[in-house]
Amino acid sequence: MRILVANANTTVAITELCADAARAAASPGVEVVAATPRFGPAVISSRAENVIAGHALLELLAEHAGQVDAVVLAVSHDTALEAARQVMPCPVVGMTEAACFAACMLATRFGLVTLGGVETYRELIGRHGLSSRLAGLEGIAATPQDALRDAHGTAALLEAAIARLVAQGAEAVVLGGAALAGMAGRLRAPVPLLDGMACGVRLAEALAGLGAARPRAGSLAPVEGRATTGLGPALAALLEGAKA
Amino acid sequence: MRILVANANTTVAITELCADAARAAASPGVEVVAATPRFGPAVISSRAENVIAGHALLELLAEHAGQVDAVVLAVSHDTALEAARQVMPCPVVGMTEAACFAACMLATRFGLVTLGGVETYRELIGRHGLSSRLAGLEGIAATPQDALRDAHGTAALLEAAIARLVAQGAEAVVLGGAALAGMAGRLRAPVPLLDGMACGVRLAEALAGLGAARPRAGSLAPVEGRATTGLGPALAALLEGAKA
Amino acid sequence: MRILVANANTTVAITELCADAARAAASPGVEVVAATPRFGPAVISSRAENVIAGHALLELLAEHAGQVDAVVLAVSHDTALEAARQVMPCPVVGMTEAACFAACMLATRFGLVTLGGVETYRELIGRHGLSSRLAGLEGIAATPQDALRDAHGTAALLEAAIARLVAQGAEAVVLGGAALAGMAGRLRAPVPLLDGMACGVRLAEALAGLGAARPRAGSLAPVEGRATTGLGPALAALLEGAKA
Amino acid sequence: MRILVANANTTVAITELCADAARAAASPGVEVVAATPRFGPAVISSRAENVIAGHALLELLAEHAGQVDAVVLAVSHDTALEAARQVMPCPVVGMTEAACFAACMLATRFGLVTLGGVETYRELIGRHGLSSRLAGLEGIAATPQDALRDAHGTAALLEAAIARLVAQGAEAVVLGGAALAGMAGRLRAPVPLLDGMACGVRLAEALAGLGAARPRAGSLAPVEGRATTGLGPALAALLEGAKA
Amino acid sequence: MRILVANANTTVAITELCADAARAAASPGVEVVAATPRFGPAVISSRAENVIAGHALLELLAEHAGQVDAVVLAVSHDTALEAARQVMPCPVVGMTEAACFAACMLATRFGLVTLGGVETYRELIGRHGLSSRLAGLEGIAATPQDALRDAHGTAALLEAAIARLVAQGAEAVVLGGAALAGMAGRLRAPVPLLDGMACGVRLAEALAGLGAARPRAGSLAPVEGRATTGLGPALAALLEGAKA
Amino acid sequence: MRILVANANTTVAITELCADAARAAASPGVEVVAATPRFGPAVISSRAENVIAGHALLELLAEHAGQVDAVVLAVSHDTALEAARQVMPCPVVGMTEAACFAACMLATRFGLVTLGGVETYRELIGRHGLSSRLAGLEGIAATPQDALRDAHGTAALLEAAIARLVAQGAEAVVLGGAALAGMAGRLRAPVPLLDGMACGVRLAEALAGLGAARPRAGSLAPVEGRATTGLGPALAALLEGAKA
Repeated sequence: MRILVANANTTVAITELCADAARAAASPGVEVVAATPRFGPAVISSRAENVIAGHALLELLAEHAGQVDAVVLAVSHDTALEAARQVMPCPVVGMTEAACFAACMLATRFGLVTLGGVETYRELIGRHGLSSRLAGLEGIAATPQDALRDAHGTAALLEAAIARLVAQGAEAVVLGGAALAGMAGRLRAPVPLLDGMACGVRLAEALAGLGAARPRAGSLAPVEGRATTGLGPALAALLEGAKA
Repeated sequence: MRILVANANTTVAITELCADAARAAASPGVEVVAATPRFGPAVISSRAENVIAGHALLELLAEHAGQVDAVVLAVSHDTALEAARQVMPCPVVGMTEAACFAACMLATRFGLVTLGGVETYRELIGRHGLSSRLAGLEGIAATPQDALRDAHGTAALLEAAIARLVAQGAEAVVLGGAALAGMAGRLRAPVPLLDGMACGVRLAEALAGLGAARPRAGSLAPVEGRATTGLGPALAALLEGAKA
Repeated sequence: MRILVANANTTVAITELCADAARAAASPGVEVVAATPRFGPAVISSRAENVIAGHALLELLAEHAGQVDAVVLAVSHDTALEAARQVMPCPVVGMTEAACFAACMLATRFGLVTLGGVETYRELIGRHGLSSRLAGLEGIAATPQDALRDAHGTAALLEAAIARLVAQGAEAVVLGGAALAGMAGRLRAPVPLLDGMACGVRLAEALAGLGAARPRAGSLAPVEGRATTGLGPALAALLEGAKA
Repeated sequence: MRILVANANTTVAITELCADAARAAASPGVEVVAATPRFGPAVISSRAENVIAGHALLELLAEHAGQVDAVVLAVSHDTALEAARQVMPCPVVGMTEAACFAACMLATRFGLVTLGGVETYRELIGRHGLSSRLAGLEGIAATPQDALRDAHGTAALLEAAIARLVAQGAEAVVLGGAALAGMAGRLRAPVPLLDGMACGVRLAEALAGLGAARPRAGSLAPVEGRATTGLGPALAALLEGAKA
Repeated sequence: MRILVANANTTVAITELCADAARAAASPGVEVVAATPRFGPAVISSRAENVIAGHALLELLAEHAGQVDAVVLAVSHDTALEAARQVMPCPVVGMTEAACFAACMLATRFGLVTLGGVETYRELIGRHGLSSRLAGLEGIAATPQDALRDAHGTAALLEAAIARLVAQGAEAVVLGGAALAGMAGRLRAPVPLLDGMACGVRLAEALAGLGAARPRAGSLAPVEGRATTGLGPALAALLEGAKA
Repeated sequence: MRILVANANTTVAITELCADAARAAASPGVEVVAATPRFGPAVISSRAENVIAGHALLELLAEHAGQVDAVVLAVSHDTALEAARQVMPCPVVGMTEAACFAACMLATRFGLVTLGGVETYRELIGRHGLSSRLAGLEGIAATPQDALRDAHGTAALLEAAIARLVAQGAEAVVLGGAALAGMAGRLRAPVPLLDGMACGVRLAEALAGLGAARPRAGSLAPVEGRATTGLGPALAALLEGAKA
């Protein structure tokens, strides 16, 4: 089984970090392929960057359509997730989506901790329909750079935030943000911690293993005959031909 | 007052249709400027096209930042609306958003009728927080091309759908879809009909007139120092400099 | 265009305060007419007073039916709003409703700050269907009298409350309460502040400008042949004749 | 125990119908007192009439404050219910509220059938917080006059509507509308039918029997020192003195 | 009228405590019968114990089917409530359910205070459909043993928790937990306090008095011909024969 | 990896059917162990049977605690799921829960089709927090016996129901009910069909593979020192000792 780990920003180091986390979590025999967009933001930390990255990600995915068994989006905003499902002939899983659904199968309510602001995560969890299972959101005052530079200090901030989430009723905690990939193992917590890449790769395996058919009706059905201007050839072909 | 009508697909005829509807509805003295993206889908009828159009639209808006007093997004999916609010120094209104909020100020519950599938409109209204005010959604079996070719037949289908929405409790009906711009005047209905472009331009005027300050905190605050690759110069500058 | 600013309490000074705020915010050429009920509470600060004021307000509106192009209810509880829409032949906008909808077009989630208790505002925002867009409510420990007497001290309390709302995720803040009309300009805040009268008059202009038809079906359709006892002649006639 | 059955319209025949239904359902030893407002609509069938009736009802209740042990509002819109709770020193129950809560203790989801439009009932059930327990609403094409004139035909329409509600998942059905008081006994149905007056009087007994203290904090706490103009002496005194 | 107070744990002292509270609150002439399961947990303080107790409770109820006019479940988790409604030929009321519904008829939003964790109460109130009327939940750091041993200290903790709930908007407070039965009278609070057993017995009286028919359709309709293994004879007979 | 397929009714044939479906769907190298309770209902088709089965299931699970790597509950009501999570030292997945979460990762909204009534499935999906992602529920007029006897006729009914769900917006359909295990392969449908046992075993593998820690805080934390009467030795020991 080949699983594509698709970053949505242009920073190769983040792609590699995520791919490593995916490889560490994958079942034996699963091949993890990693890819990075050709254009877009270096890091996604605003709504505008996320919109741009959505396009960049679709271009990237189109280049791998038909060559992988499943995709994990290595971007914590689950950028362009539904659109990716529409264009790709294989299952696509978002890393935060995966962690949230895994949390729901381990806990009654869960929390999410991230670096910086939490509002877009609140919206994301609402978009996944899970607002009623969310106990709380905590953003720690640290940047992705801080997390890489001072893993020890970041861990302390994270543990304090996790404790606040547990006090709010969280019985599992999702680590939100690609920069936290692999951090779960360093943290002490009284509840399960869910890493997006680990959950993403395991749930992608599960969906690929189920062999579910692709939808032929509804808003995720493959498109055909769509005319476009100025796109990369792979994405343009996918929208035009719908052979996948 | 200058208001930008920004299409999100590359079809100039749709841009013009929307701009005409906006001009017809605007207050005296309002100048309507219209613009069309340089790349992306010819028409947006799928999730993937909508994601691509989001990027194209941000590129387009960036080229007008600082030159207009308000923006109306001439795309019925309110594509990239929140991101547009983040990058632009003036108010930005989505055409469906505007019609829905206007409906809420005229009716207790409203319906929406569109061409084709309704699921993405259901999600959109949920994203605007208005699910509890939605009485129903109806999609008629007609394409934008049909609507342009056979306005009479399309009007009959729309009137039947409006009647079904009224039976479900709708006290106002939103016409969803840029292809229906200007159609409201041709339809007989027992409840107010809301045209996205008309509502968009009037509410954009209202917001511009209020002169509300731009947010300096939260997820819509302007960004600064964001590094990007491969974007158009205006959008790259906006993300880098945040002078607007 | 003539817009009626209709107070729902009997204190003429509050009517004038609201009318002044409306005039300051109105577009050029808009005439603001103000009116005060003949009976009811001097100030509305309880549920019972709000119910009484609803009747008083309908009596007042009936006297202006057909003579104005739109109505702004100058009462922060949006008292009798839906009933006013039913009896009046023109658009009717509530001041808090208007500020909340304006906030939704400028921000993803908003907060509300008021003098005193917040529970009835929580209910009001739920009635408008906007609970999911509400980040928080803050009531400061000050009366309308305090606000008039000590604008400086009140401003300090308001700014602190706004800061708490921003911390809860508010990206815009509604100033709730007629006594805060005109206060927005005195406050420093990192997010847009929405004044009910300013928003009300601008959105009333927008709705009047749209020229939407009056509903002839549903719960807001005009009534006819309703028999009543002991009402003022204008309201009784409106319920009996439904000519408007 | 004395229970006040307070009509909100001015039609004494409806007051009597409701009082009879209340007496038939009351526990032995309970005295039912009935009262009718001095002004307002003859019948409440619109939003405006309901607002006016709210004021009329508060005037009426004020005249009985301190003289009864509980109040049942004999108006199916639960008109001015929260305001009535604020001014009265005893429990106040709405007839539809009571039927809905009783339905919730007998069934998992319930339906409501009424004469005419259903939208205001949908709102009412939302206001009571019970939307998630509502299986459906059905309005039959009959007026209160029809119901009185042709009880047999009305019963057939009601039974058909109840069957539709059961098919939607209703496991109990509320009969909405004072004109249906006493009708439950004439109907055959596979699920329990809840009569508002019967439920209202029994739940009012229960609340009075519990002897719960009156709230001294929050939005239902009694008011004091409220100045008013043009009200009846009892209501004015209640708002001014808050001795109750 | 005979009302069964059915404990769901095996501790007879708790059964007696609850029965005493029920007797103190019951109307004159009501006979309270108390019963204790033969197996299961001594005290229910976990999800697993609650599941086991559900079975034990159904065995107990089956032994009283046809011999009582109503049932109050003397277990604050409203254990097996809907299943009890299905098997019993008379009304069944849960003690927390009863207190919450009573609170809704006295207040706009209510709070709940209990000993220990609050998450299962949050779920329970959601199951009753009342989440939107819940102002908050507070768990005090005391066990049922503490409450019995040190009523004075427990009362102080409860009063502090009630004050916090009032600050969150609670206008009535439910005392959750059988160990708090009878505690309401010892507490000073600015809002009504609702005791589950008192509310349960009064609402059970009301429902029994209404004489509502048993559902013959839907998920609460009595079953017939169900084959089982290893159950007590009364419950097995009820599932097999459905004569009740 | 060893996965326990735990039936909750006493019919061994259903246990075997489910275990076969699990084995067919499991990854290579996964050992599926099947178990059947010693007491309880032969088939679960009512609320009371489901409560009894919850206890029987916990007894069964306790006997396997520590001997398996994950559990799939082979009962479509996800009976006692949260309690099972509390007592077991390994992940526990419900078959309907698993199918619903898988549907959410393949579709935007999903439907569910089952044999007979749908109300308890509506509640179940609400309990999982997924109501906003549910497009509709359809119950076909067939019993489990019919499904086994006439697979062809049942398939036709299912396909018609699936078509109705697609028309309501379902982009994936969950097959609810253990009697439908393995049926997915026989059906033609334009959207993915999710089989509870297949999804359950694959998601159980994923969760076991993640190696998430067991919660030590909150409502799922293992219990200790709980006294019980009349339980099987394994379950009593688990509640008493909490060694797992």
